Amino acid sequence: MPVYQAPVADTLFVLNDLLGIERHSNLAAFAETSPDIVEAVLGEAGRFAEDVFFPLNQTGDREGCHRHEDGSVTTPTGFKQAYNQFREAGWGGLSADPAYGGQGLPHTVAAAVNEYLSSANMAFAMYPGLTRGAIAALEQHGTQEQKQLYLPKMIEGIWTGTMNLTEPHCGTDLGLLRTKAAPAGDGSYRITGQKIFISAGEHDLSDNIIHLVLARIDGAPEGVKGISLFVVPKFLPDEAGAVGARNAVSCGSIEEKMGIHGNATCVMNYDGATGWLVGEADKGLRAMFTMMNEARLGVGVQGLAVSEIAYQNAVAYARERIQGRSLSGAKAPEKRADPIIVHPDIRRMLMTIRAVNEGGRALILWTALKGDLFHLSQDAKEREAADDWLGLMTPVIKGVLTDKGFDNAVMAQQVYGGHGYIAEWGMEQYVRDARIAQIYEGANGIQALDLVGRKLALNNGRAVQSFFAEVGAFCEAHRADERLSPFTKGLKKGLNDLQAATLWLMGNAMGKPDNAGAASTDYMHLFGLVALGYMWARMAKVAAEKLGDGSATDPAFLEAKLVTARFFMDRLMPETAAHLARISSGSTSMMALDAAVF
Amino acid sequence: MPVYQAPVADTLFVLNDLLGIERHSNLAAFAETSPDIVEAVLGEAGRFAEDVFFPLNQTGDREGCHRHEDGSVTTPTGFKQAYNQFREAGWGGLSADPAYGGQGLPHTVAAAVNEYLSSANMAFAMYPGLTRGAIAALEQHGTQEQKQLYLPKMIEGIWTGTMNLTEPHCGTDLGLLRTKAAPAGDGSYRITGQKIFISAGEHDLSDNIIHLVLARIDGAPEGVKGISLFVVPKFLPDEAGAVGARNAVSCGSIEEKMGIHGNATCVMNYDGATGWLVGEADKGLRAMFTMMNEARLGVGVQGLAVSEIAYQNAVAYARERIQGRSLSGAKAPEKRADPIIVHPDIRRMLMTIRAVNEGGRALILWTALKGDLFHLSQDAKEREAADDWLGLMTPVIKGVLTDKGFDNAVMAQQVYGGHGYIAEWGMEQYVRDARIAQIYEGANGIQALDLVGRKLALNNGRAVQSFFAEVGAFCEAHRADERLSPFTKGLKKGLNDLQAATLWLMGNAMGKPDNAGAASTDYMHLFGLVALGYMWARMAKVAAEKLGDGSATDPAFLEAKLVTARFFMDRLMPETAAHLARISSGSTSMMALDAAVF
Repeated sequence: MPVYQAPVADTLFVLNDLLGIERHSNLAAFAETSPDIVEAVLGEAGRFAEDVFFPLNQTGDREGCHRHEDGSVTTPTGFKQAYNQFREAGWGGLSADPAYGGQGLPHTVAAAVNEYLSSANMAFAMYPGLTRGAIAALEQHGTQEQKQLYLPKMIEGIWTGTMNLTEPHCGTDLGLLRTKAAPAGDGSYRITGQKIFISAGEHDLSDNIIHLVLARIDGAPEGVKGISLFVVPKFLPDEAGAVGARNAVSCGSIEEKMGIHGNATCVMNYDGATGWLVGEADKGLRAMFTMMNEARLGVGVQGLAVSEIAYQNAVAYARERIQGRSLSGAKAPEKRADPIIVHPDIRRMLMTIRAVNEGGRALILWTALKGDLFHLSQDAKEREAADDWLGLMTPVIKGVLTDKGFDNAVMAQQVYGGHGYIAEWGMEQYVRDARIAQIYEGANGIQALDLVGRKLALNNGRAVQSFFAEVGAFCEAHRADERLSPFTKGLKKGLNDLQAATLWLMGNAMGKPDNAGAASTDYMHLFGLVALGYMWARMAKVAAEKLGDGSATDPAFLEAKLVTARFFMDRLMPETAAHLARISSGSTSMMALDAAVF
Repeated sequence: MPVYQAPVADTLFVLNDLLGIERHSNLAAFAETSPDIVEAVLGEAGRFAEDVFFPLNQTGDREGCHRHEDGSVTTPTGFKQAYNQFREAGWGGLSADPAYGGQGLPHTVAAAVNEYLSSANMAFAMYPGLTRGAIAALEQHGTQEQKQLYLPKMIEGIWTGTMNLTEPHCGTDLGLLRTKAAPAGDGSYRITGQKIFISAGEHDLSDNIIHLVLARIDGAPEGVKGISLFVVPKFLPDEAGAVGARNAVSCGSIEEKMGIHGNATCVMNYDGATGWLVGEADKGLRAMFTMMNEARLGVGVQGLAVSEIAYQNAVAYARERIQGRSLSGAKAPEKRADPIIVHPDIRRMLMTIRAVNEGGRALILWTALKGDLFHLSQDAKEREAADDWLGLMTPVIKGVLTDKGFDNAVMAQQVYGGHGYIAEWGMEQYVRDARIAQIYEGANGIQALDLVGRKLALNNGRAVQSFFAEVGAFCEAHRADERLSPFTKGLKKGLNDLQAATLWLMGNAMGKPDNAGAASTDYMHLFGLVALGYMWARMAKVAAEKLGDGSATDPAFLEAKLVTARFFMDRLMPETAAHLARISSGSTSMMALDAAVF
């Protein structure tokens, strides 16, 4: 019964009208990003998501993955066939390096495609999603040999990848990890230990599974400075690179979890498995963060993606379900009641979700473009600015868009009333699926600490000062423009609160780090509102200009942008003041109770 | 693995120190509410919840209820035996009328007991919970005969009850309901139609199930003015009141739902079932609201209850799980890492939940006491004031405590990191269970409309003006008291925002009702914060006094009250300003989009 249609028109508005990605066509990846080509790619990706991934979303949730006695795991009915279609269509290599068989399109375009795939079937989209993270780590830290051996097959999708970090006693604090790596004398290592929560750890979709595993080489220092990254294939490739002997790594069990049942979350046992070092010994955390940052942006995309499909279904229901009459007089007098979309409180929920989704889509693609520029630009200043933006926005996108994505899924479910609680309508699955995005790849509290404790201070605050300057300049430039002043006014107010919070942190957190920890989650959300508000103000500018100069081909779409931008400023931006008030209340009452008193 | 311990000490603090219920001992129900007796009752209830209900919470969730081919339904393993223990111990009749076999204790005490039972096993506690609602409706609207026939067995618990309102096409808008009642000529009616979402509609716990059913008598007016309430027993009682012939009512299916799997949510088919009118013909909504108001407070209790058990488990985990080091230096240097309760962001979550729970418990019991006074007081003014408070606070308690209860369950789950997403830890069940409380008995958006559209204006705003006067007077009386000024200051700020929002509504919603609808949810939450803040300020006063005059037997408990009150003012109360800003932004941007554009 659920519906899904990829929001191609909105993506195109962001890529073409807001970002104007074609102006980067001097960079190889952007050579073929004319509006026509991008529209064709996105249209095809959208149809693929709708036709192939989406029909398996509810069935995959119900059936789940199954582990058999021999340790093998089968994915839900239909997944294998759909994965083959995905692989054959080449979607896995969309933005991968052409040197290894990729199509070499910008990551910006791939991020849009990932949104569609994750909306249509988040649990399924994780299989190729984790592969992309592993590809990124090998591309940047692997030896030439490793790249030649693994990348072509992973990009083609006949091999998939995983990330193995967490152990039963250690998640956030990787310094505690115990998995061992013993040199075998031939350049390889024997990996021994147990990893948990390994998404796509074992399954039947690919011929081989390439595990990237954090472990401690015998004699390495304690803590995070003694951790190395290893590549541990399920089947050891033979000399020709074909699948060879089974390695000593196996799935011990599948976790029973709240959602994403279509993805196999495995306990992985390494019993002297053969692995090879990736990057330098004891520098595994650095390599791991390559995967992690990629993955964190991908998780932010999941937050948006689930929010988007939940929104689309809530809208469809709100248009069809009749119940009560509009407070301002019957809107469908020919029916026994009005469709519930006439009721302000239903609108409140739909508009809130819409404002976060469209703003979030812009922020993700804006940030993905920075990622491409960081990798490709010939201009050192541009690369530096892009890197600054990426560092700042990665925790914001991960933390804020997944928190809001979950809240939005809950709101969309609420639109359905009692039916929202019933499995067949599909809404409760979105809530269960969206929930994990707040937790994995660094729980959102960790994202907030990364922002406040690390990213703010980097390079003497260069990144955050640039952001303030950019947003402030935009507000100033359009302050007198009466079409835009409603937006710049709201944005400026939010920016002022964010700057005040930043100043408060500078004055109060250096000497008392608990004040930083106590402020962190509020600060991250305050930052997110300003970042989203900036996107909205810029989208309003584009919409107003296109409406003003008569170049609009779809004026209703642009008018809706202006309304939604206004709603964002009316209803979401006011939260910045509450965040500031909480932040500047400090940590005293938060930290005063003895642990025993709770 | 989950834990639960009934918070008896906190309940006693509210009942004895905050409310001083013993001072009402002139009223029959309060004759036996000395601190000793109340402590004994609550202690026993707590142990019963812990020992009998709680062990079946996770198993009941996993196993769920099953419908068999003959339409019978079995509850999860152990439920029937536990229900028998519940019945034999007399917990179902705790506050019921002694004339029909009840124990006649105040509803205030019963509300506390319900919290414990709902924490321990929400899905299970609903079986007796719905019975209490049906008892209330029959007590107030049934004939003497009906009372004699049904009440003793329902109070004893050998018969249970249900509420049958919703139909597939009609939930909120009961005017659309289609179930028919045809007079049989002998004073009874033949009821025909389908009801959905009927909690405890069919099960194996009791000898008979007494359905209270809304239906339309042949020829009755359309809309809500043609609805009547009927009592429709599963088995027709014979002349001696014993279970007789099977009535033509049956469970067509059990809904597959997100949570509360231990409760059978049934589609109920009425195929010419025999029923009898309860109360006057066509006045069924009024009788239904008796059940409904009772039920709405009960649902608010569920919000608190799930939040409380989620809190207790999150605290236990945060004390045990070691990960990372305190920002202010190692707290457990003998271990490889500190327990995560040292981290401010973990504290933020725990303290937030704690502040809502303890404030919510006070607000529920304060309101339950008003309910008892409304029924029992000899003083007309006191009854009027109690009724005003009840009318105002019923939607606030239902809407706010269930929204916050859900948010809290989500936060408690977040404390567990990845383990929170795994079923065996139990946290994800609390999230799934808590979710329904925001939806049923009138979705929270409906609570908000009830508050803004109905309760505010009743009797020219008498209730809300009394509330403002009471809270304002408290702030004024303690403004100069330096022990209390931190609390009265925060409360006064919240009250000012609430009054400003109320004035805004008076000025802007009369002529434009969409402004009321657009404001409603924010207004309800703003109201809730002030109501909770009032509870916190009053609790702080009690704690400060007891600490000051040396009468404290547990000073750590009272100091914690002061800290938590301060946290409430620091971290929760600032949200009132954001609510006010959103409310006064009006409905323009919310309502501007054409339904087709979404």
